[in-house]
Amino acid sequence: MMKNLKINLWDLDITNKKLAVISHVNPDADSLGSIMALGLALQKNCQSITICVCDHIPNALSFLPFINTATNYHLTESTQYDICFVLDCADEKRLGESQGILDKSHQIINIDHHVSNGFFGDINSVNPHASSTSEIIYELLIDNNITITPDIATCLYAGIVGDTGNFLYDNTSAQTHYIAGRLKEYDAQSQLVSYHLYQNKSLGSAKFQGYVLSQFESLCGGKVAIFSITLELLQKFNVSIDDIDYVSSIIRDIEGIEVAVVLKEVDSEVTKVSFRSKCDFDVNQLAQKFGGGGHIKASGATIFHEIEQAKKMVQKQLEIEIRR
Amino acid sequence: MMKNLKINLWDLDITNKKLAVISHVNPDADSLGSIMALGLALQKNCQSITICVCDHIPNALSFLPFINTATNYHLTESTQYDICFVLDCADEKRLGESQGILDKSHQIINIDHHVSNGFFGDINSVNPHASSTSEIIYELLIDNNITITPDIATCLYAGIVGDTGNFLYDNTSAQTHYIAGRLKEYDAQSQLVSYHLYQNKSLGSAKFQGYVLSQFESLCGGKVAIFSITLELLQKFNVSIDDIDYVSSIIRDIEGIEVAVVLKEVDSEVTKVSFRSKCDFDVNQLAQKFGGGGHIKASGATIFHEIEQAKKMVQKQLEIEIRR
Repeated sequence: MMKNLKINLWDLDITNKKLAVISHVNPDADSLGSIMALGLALQKNCQSITICVCDHIPNALSFLPFINTATNYHLTESTQYDICFVLDCADEKRLGESQGILDKSHQIINIDHHVSNGFFGDINSVNPHASSTSEIIYELLIDNNITITPDIATCLYAGIVGDTGNFLYDNTSAQTHYIAGRLKEYDAQSQLVSYHLYQNKSLGSAKFQGYVLSQFESLCGGKVAIFSITLELLQKFNVSIDDIDYVSSIIRDIEGIEVAVVLKEVDSEVTKVSFRSKCDFDVNQLAQKFGGGGHIKASGATIFHEIEQAKKMVQKQLEIEIRR
Repeated sequence: MMKNLKINLWDLDITNKKLAVISHVNPDADSLGSIMALGLALQKNCQSITICVCDHIPNALSFLPFINTATNYHLTESTQYDICFVLDCADEKRLGESQGILDKSHQIINIDHHVSNGFFGDINSVNPHASSTSEIIYELLIDNNITITPDIATCLYAGIVGDTGNFLYDNTSAQTHYIAGRLKEYDAQSQLVSYHLYQNKSLGSAKFQGYVLSQFESLCGGKVAIFSITLELLQKFNVSIDDIDYVSSIIRDIEGIEVAVVLKEVDSEVTKVSFRSKCDFDVNQLAQKFGGGGHIKASGATIFHEIEQAKKMVQKQLEIEIRR
């Protein structure tokens, strides 16, 4: 098992091999951008390639070039692969049905930027200093002299934009900007990316955002912002759970707020909670109190109670933690 | 009169000269970032330097390094200057009281990125392809071998972030990203910039944003979003005009909207209008119809009528323009 390896694709003899490229469930711009970029880059350089996405593709990402060529994978399939590239996935368990491909692959190449990556591949190229897996794929293509077409550049640009909050978060390095500049020179359609990721929210989603900002509550002397999303509320504003990822960041980015909490009703017995922090408050530890986890500034948990009860539990814990 | 000139500061013998650096009224991140960067960069290389800001500095920009050393200028002052650098200002009339400095300056150097710049300087370095005046100042410092300190880098980074909507707008070029990367290597405090410009809106401003998203109107078959900000509304939400620059972008970034219009009541006879476009609609031309101007995708005008009347005038013009 090797880590942080620069991969030489030609030494792997990909030209004669059957390849698969897969990523995690709940796909985001980085997972989809990186698998599409690698898939498009390798398709002329291998025997065959299969790009698998075993989940619903969010509407906002359906503009990614050739995303409709990505296929679902069914566990009953018997195809064997020489190499399976697993991208942007810290843990095999997050692969969903695609996990089945691992058993049918001769070699697994794990390419990721999550610090928690478990190095489950035969080859592991894991760089937690990269903003995104797309940034690592860019370096991989350059190192292997593979042409970056405008479509590949657009996919990689989308991945970087997605994981850096459009160059806002502190994972944005000087190198991230240099790569973004190079991708624009390779004719990445950056305006298409900006448009679909940031400038095209649905009217329902805009009105919902207005409602969130008008109605969120603040707790713990104004340090915590909290908002509950019930199934009834989603229906009222005609928005899907896809559309509302931004809720925790909009209530976090307010003066004085250190922690943002968003509760989502799954059903009458299950509530998902997401925590976001600004400043130094560790929401990974907080989420662990409810059996969840994540990063210091972004974490989540599933609470097996109805939403009002879950809110009370979170509120109680926050009052203890914030006072410390 | 010369345009698009690379300026050699040493040929201008700045070491022995008394300098002024000024910018426009209603200062934004680019005007303040660029004058502070140039001011800090030249202060060790000249006889004396005065940085003038003849207007209120928005709270969100009070973090800029040494911004408190910028002074007001009063028309009664008699100081003479050898060189006055005018930054980010297409038209001398936008200088406010600082315009008085021009008459007391031996030489005027006009550095700007607005396509509408009138070349009013003795030397004019105007590059409409630059994202921001801060981008031009970066090149100027590099070309003249002037050290970029972390404070200067932070000011320039803030200017670029401000004028590109944090690298979102289509004035963001490959060169913009390369410069942003270099500024990070010069230790620009990019997280401080992100925090103050995007992650620290006041509670009043957040609630106001919620109100805007709930209440904006759409016109011209859903292609135009329009919102009127009266003095009464500002008072109700306890927000200042400083805090609400974002209004036009949040209503523009909605599915189907091509142009966003925000009207601001100044008094019972004066209304300011700002126009923002997505797609190809030229709001510079639209603003010119009302005696204003700006860029293709961002422009403004002052209409000498009360806000409801101004709204009707704008609406009428939009119905003609959008139909074309």
